[in-house]
Amino acid sequence: MFTEIDNYVAKCISLTENEKEYFHSLLNHQSVKKKTFLQQAGETCGFEAYIIKGCIKSYYIDENGSEVILHFAVENWWIGDIANFSGNKKSTLNLEALEDTELLVINIIDKEKLYEKVPKFERMFRLMIQRTHETMMNRLISTMAKPAEERYLEFISKYPSIPQRVPQHLIAAYLGISPEFLSKLKAKLTKKKS
Amino acid sequence: MFTEIDNYVAKCISLTENEKEYFHSLLNHQSVKKKTFLQQAGETCGFEAYIIKGCIKSYYIDENGSEVILHFAVENWWIGDIANFSGNKKSTLNLEALEDTELLVINIIDKEKLYEKVPKFERMFRLMIQRTHETMMNRLISTMAKPAEERYLEFISKYPSIPQRVPQHLIAAYLGISPEFLSKLKAKLTKKKS
Repeated sequence: MFTEIDNYVAKCISLTENEKEYFHSLLNHQSVKKKTFLQQAGETCGFEAYIIKGCIKSYYIDENGSEVILHFAVENWWIGDIANFSGNKKSTLNLEALEDTELLVINIIDKEKLYEKVPKFERMFRLMIQRTHETMMNRLISTMAKPAEERYLEFISKYPSIPQRVPQHLIAAYLGISPEFLSKLKAKLTKKKS
Repeated sequence: MFTEIDNYVAKCISLTENEKEYFHSLLNHQSVKKKTFLQQAGETCGFEAYIIKGCIKSYYIDENGSEVILHFAVENWWIGDIANFSGNKKSTLNLEALEDTELLVINIIDKEKLYEKVPKFERMFRLMIQRTHETMMNRLISTMAKPAEERYLEFISKYPSIPQRVPQHLIAAYLGISPEFLSKLKAKLTKKKS
């Protein structure tokens, strides 16, 4: 159960056996069935979760009821309310499983205990957030500055496995375009290649 | 010179006098005149900088030559290439002073030395990136999901001092609307109030 997360952690920091055991003791294994929620907007969910297997869609519902998709998180990603420092803030995001998903969940209070007892984890989570932040910054730049075709090509180059796992209309929503426009775009690109 | 940054750090971690001195020894004071650059896109600038006084505009130039503004950073903010782990990556962002600006700059190599010698700084920078990330995530949600009026109201409520310091056409660029549309929006809101 801990093989993947231990490998992930080992890329950032070295742990003793005792530290590893303590870390494991704070993680709760959770299974989320396809089409069910790990979190719904409006809930007070102070946690972060590491994805062992599966795919989680993180999204916001706008005032017209449309989904604004922030990301599709798959194996080896962390998901949750990174910005929820106290664990008391209500989240604005929905986290929904697109596949049967296995996670290791740590709540904010236990995470603080972990930092206190094994301060090395500050480094691991700092590096994790730096990466997440880089992704988010590039996403914002793409959304604001780049045409749909370039956004799509960036997306499939960065996340080559996602188009096989996620329905096309969700990829369109992620890119902020209609499914029809995405179909046209893909047809145009296929024609260009041939 | 170090009063502001010491207060900032003290909100996250406690330092001994020796640790504080070591931290100060890694910071370089830099003055950037209004309308000049701290960094230009394409440069290999591995640093982060704390703003003592002034205002820096962080932006990306799109393929039509238009500015896509990521943020206006003022006193007590950090600016730089947070995602530039190695210090070797070419930046895509321009950092330009909108006012005469005073900064304390630390380069990526010295920051790694700091983490090694005073690991507590992992916590400080983790907390800093969490906040920056939260801002960026909310910005992305606003950009993708909220109408211009709501985006403008959010902006002046979050950053009440910025409209007095930054020209209106730049605020329009930040919001992704034309200066004319921003004028109309402001007139409409003033009318609503009266």
